[in-house]
Amino acid sequence: MIERLTLIGVGMIGGSLALALRQGGFCGEIVGYDRDIQALQKALESGVIDRYAEDPCAAVSGAEVVVLATPVRAVEAICRTLRDCLAEETVLTDVGSVKGDVVRAVVAGFGRLPQNFVPGHPIAGKERSGIEAASADLFVGRRVILTPVAGTSAQAQRKVRLLWECAGSVVEDMALEHHDEVLAATSHLPHLLAFTLVASLSRLGESDEIFRYAAGGFRDFTRIASSDPIMWRDVCLSNRDAILNALNHFEHDLQGLSEAIAAGDGRRLLELFSNAKRSRDRFCH
Amino acid sequence: MIERLTLIGVGMIGGSLALALRQGGFCGEIVGYDRDIQALQKALESGVIDRYAEDPCAAVSGAEVVVLATPVRAVEAICRTLRDCLAEETVLTDVGSVKGDVVRAVVAGFGRLPQNFVPGHPIAGKERSGIEAASADLFVGRRVILTPVAGTSAQAQRKVRLLWECAGSVVEDMALEHHDEVLAATSHLPHLLAFTLVASLSRLGESDEIFRYAAGGFRDFTRIASSDPIMWRDVCLSNRDAILNALNHFEHDLQGLSEAIAAGDGRRLLELFSNAKRSRDRFCH
Repeated sequence: MIERLTLIGVGMIGGSLALALRQGGFCGEIVGYDRDIQALQKALESGVIDRYAEDPCAAVSGAEVVVLATPVRAVEAICRTLRDCLAEETVLTDVGSVKGDVVRAVVAGFGRLPQNFVPGHPIAGKERSGIEAASADLFVGRRVILTPVAGTSAQAQRKVRLLWECAGSVVEDMALEHHDEVLAATSHLPHLLAFTLVASLSRLGESDEIFRYAAGGFRDFTRIASSDPIMWRDVCLSNRDAILNALNHFEHDLQGLSEAIAAGDGRRLLELFSNAKRSRDRFCH
Repeated sequence: MIERLTLIGVGMIGGSLALALRQGGFCGEIVGYDRDIQALQKALESGVIDRYAEDPCAAVSGAEVVVLATPVRAVEAICRTLRDCLAEETVLTDVGSVKGDVVRAVVAGFGRLPQNFVPGHPIAGKERSGIEAASADLFVGRRVILTPVAGTSAQAQRKVRLLWECAGSVVEDMALEHHDEVLAATSHLPHLLAFTLVASLSRLGESDEIFRYAAGGFRDFTRIASSDPIMWRDVCLSNRDAILNALNHFEHDLQGLSEAIAAGDGRRLLELFSNAKRSRDRFCH
């Protein structure tokens, strides 16, 4: 149980966490801050937050925990604002899909790495964004990865772990660089493929027709192309090297597939598809 | 209502069609043939077919309609067997995802193009294959594309259209080459990307770990990588040119994305993701 938690950014992820913590009885008061006043008002009306402040420093005043739930590229500016007003003992954490760049942004904003900052990433999401899409059960059974760095306070880390466990998550620690590589492959790459596929198809001559004949699998396949464009722009800018590396590997494999098709190499195609099916069935059922 | 229908290939697609036609009261008797006797026995036991024959010619004897529901690459051999025993008046149709190569195979097998052959493609499927996965409602509300060629009997075409409408489908005609191009983009390409993504990830160092951290979207995205490898090998071999063309376009677009990421071009990334989201939301909701 913590006395007061401040949520910086009342979007789908932050709002879902607030709802989960409230439902779990983990928080006394939840204070919101967002650049978007309308979002704050909606969050207040729907009971996601207890009150809000229009100034970040007023919002974090007296907070035991501050959760940064903004797009990744907004972290540096908000930390610069909090630099002179965030209490030393306040625990700070974030929810960004990229961890290396968030740590860099926090260091740049504060001019140092606060010991009580615990980088975190809930592996959960949905296509709809904004406070209206928040739901208390978003994190139930989902993994949350914490990537503490040298100097991160063990006590702060425990508190952030408890917070996510209260939201129903399975919390794990991981080295920061490793996190960014693993997520580039398992999350960032699939999103980029889905965005590119839809963009590619919609440029075809009669795109209405093209989409009309898309089968059921296509809908599932491209669902993640409805995700928030700003968030994904930020992910691309923030995890550039790991994403380029993952894209590179994928392009190489796709090239191999193209060659097998061009050569009419049925044996190689069958092997590739069989291996993929085996891996997928093994891990996803 | 037709007196007798013969199903060549009692897999998921053929079995689903038989169940739908039976449920709709469209068929008197349904006769099955398959190279796999166990599949025939299962189809008989589960009421998908009324009886089966171990010889293709015996199976099609007296049939008003014969549905080829085998993998695409098996069509030529089966047509060669039917060449001397299929009655002139019997209507022949198929369910292949590729139409140009099926017509070629039918011509090669029969030594001519039977007037009563109507190439067809139900745009429906699921990842599970085999007769156990058959379901009567698979085609309800789904599109079926017929690609009649010069010389196709209008009467045969009407009968095949009725058959699919009885199964609940929306039937449309399309030029054969256009069908193969549209499907290469909307169905074949997404399947190949899913297979390649899973193959690419499972080659990474610790693939258990990689898949463990895959988020929800990844499961949807790769579901189609659990599809039947033999069917997809055949699709690749049979629709080679259109698929290579679609792959080519996609690779070009993916290269453009890589360049935008490498250049840190946030404006271009946001534009690409926003356009994709807009197209996807417009067509898939």
